[in-house]
Amino acid sequence: MKKTLTLTAGLLCSLNAWAMTPSNEPIQPILPAKITDPAKVELGKQLFFDPRLSLSGFISCNSCHNLSMGGSDNLQTSIGHNWQKGPINSPTVLNSSMNVAQFWDGRAADLKEQAAGPIANPGEMAFTHSLALDTLRSIPQYRDAFKAVYKVDKITIDAVTDAIAEFEKTLVTPHSRFDRWLLGDKEALTQVELEGYKLFKDTGCTTCHNGPAAGGNSFQKMGLVEPYKTDNPAEGVAALTGKDADRFKFKVPTLRNVELTYPYFHDGAYWKLEEAVDVMARLQLGRKLSDDEVGKITAFLKTLTGEQPSFTLPILPPSTNDTPQPKPFE
Amino acid sequence: MKKTLTLTAGLLCSLNAWAMTPSNEPIQPILPAKITDPAKVELGKQLFFDPRLSLSGFISCNSCHNLSMGGSDNLQTSIGHNWQKGPINSPTVLNSSMNVAQFWDGRAADLKEQAAGPIANPGEMAFTHSLALDTLRSIPQYRDAFKAVYKVDKITIDAVTDAIAEFEKTLVTPHSRFDRWLLGDKEALTQVELEGYKLFKDTGCTTCHNGPAAGGNSFQKMGLVEPYKTDNPAEGVAALTGKDADRFKFKVPTLRNVELTYPYFHDGAYWKLEEAVDVMARLQLGRKLSDDEVGKITAFLKTLTGEQPSFTLPILPPSTNDTPQPKPFE
Repeated sequence: MKKTLTLTAGLLCSLNAWAMTPSNEPIQPILPAKITDPAKVELGKQLFFDPRLSLSGFISCNSCHNLSMGGSDNLQTSIGHNWQKGPINSPTVLNSSMNVAQFWDGRAADLKEQAAGPIANPGEMAFTHSLALDTLRSIPQYRDAFKAVYKVDKITIDAVTDAIAEFEKTLVTPHSRFDRWLLGDKEALTQVELEGYKLFKDTGCTTCHNGPAAGGNSFQKMGLVEPYKTDNPAEGVAALTGKDADRFKFKVPTLRNVELTYPYFHDGAYWKLEEAVDVMARLQLGRKLSDDEVGKITAFLKTLTGEQPSFTLPILPPSTNDTPQPKPFE
Repeated sequence: MKKTLTLTAGLLCSLNAWAMTPSNEPIQPILPAKITDPAKVELGKQLFFDPRLSLSGFISCNSCHNLSMGGSDNLQTSIGHNWQKGPINSPTVLNSSMNVAQFWDGRAADLKEQAAGPIANPGEMAFTHSLALDTLRSIPQYRDAFKAVYKVDKITIDAVTDAIAEFEKTLVTPHSRFDRWLLGDKEALTQVELEGYKLFKDTGCTTCHNGPAAGGNSFQKMGLVEPYKTDNPAEGVAALTGKDADRFKFKVPTLRNVELTYPYFHDGAYWKLEEAVDVMARLQLGRKLSDDEVGKITAFLKTLTGEQPSFTLPILPPSTNDTPQPKPFE
């Protein structure tokens, strides 16, 4: 009888939390990942960590989307094959499944399409899909895993990028303090953080930073009210459409885990979150915030740090005598 | 009563396995790691994976001693800061606590001394100990962890390298098929593998590859009977002693997990294990093995692949506004 009572109380408590979710808040809680095909996710995880998808044998997806570091590399722009300086700041892979499209300019429709890009980009992993497939096909454990998961006799780039994307979809960060507050735990945020959230809304930040990811769901011009000054030549969406109106239009980045994903903006020019808040308010919203206001909004933003994906480091199957050798110095 | 019987039977079984260990075998089983201070090991694991110990913010210990890949990088020689080509093949960190000394030339007495090297080596992580300490000291979670584990108010390089070494000591690979055989499981090896082991001993490989790590416990001249031809300028122990007799004398590498630690030798010149076996037999022992013999010894060597260290990928604490910024392009 006691057990039943406890269970019922627990259930009521959950329902209560749900009922208490402020339905009119512009940001919604992140839900934990539902893994329906663990073998596919495990395969994708191996591929995500496998540097043999690069010409050098040294760069993996995790090199620039480091899951120890908020799913980014914490560099202004990334380091690619032969230490090439990348053109743009590496966006976090965390919660990236919620993005309306992938890359800063949205040139990939989804994570699967995105995953094909860096492997063959001469400035990143500098490989070819064909050589990546030769590599994977030479390793019996990979052959077996793809056969079991995708029912294919021959590994395809479609299956490779699908597995990576399926792993990436699990990289969500629920249970942040802000989400606990959203779900009814009124103790989860301090007074300062709550004031920061109110300022965040009142200043207009939620015009773009809304939805579960607090961003990622629209493209906006960088420097809407006042131009953004940068040496970075990235053109944004205009590079795809050729339209002048799309110049400097970038995907609004998620603010989830923003505490972990410095430096900020597409050019990684700002290292301090306080500075990023100040710049955004001025350039996008025409508002000069006081130091106190910036401090409060920054305090709120840090409550968006969620539970980081926790998993066992994958052990990769060894190459065989048939595996193409890495060529780091070509 | 039934439970007691089962327990006793289990105990007898273990004792039995122990009693059955062939005491006169030149290779002994690897014992699982005993972790006495889990907080220290966890701290060392974070540091091992933290690229902020490098000037670029891109290279961590795990870059060249990748724990997804047998604790090595599977490159001929490693890639350092600014894509510099390293001078020598990266030795596996797995079971490295059993080495008589560290580095190919033994210039570091132990893992702690070793860990200090790459951080400050301009061709590797290209940082300074002083900047590494500034970085760690700027991060409150690191300050707290060092204070809890080492009782220090200020993080020291001594504590940093000690924590890394303590983590590395846990990176042992017990329960290989060969060890199961050593411990009495006569089904653990096939007939071919057993013949390979006999050939391995009869050919004289165990002169140098003995002990729990099947190597790592002595220095020997590379090219004892016949000279080893290589473009690699490494001099071995002679670089330390200046003695001509020490020229080309290197630490005998462990053969544990040798299936995973290609390419082979200090110059990483050989990718196929079969080739490495052939070269070793000819140059060190003056024996030309047949293809059949090489195949059998190779089959035996693959039974030395042990259980790889299994752990959760560490989540690193974020930098703060006081953390020195990485400088990848300097």
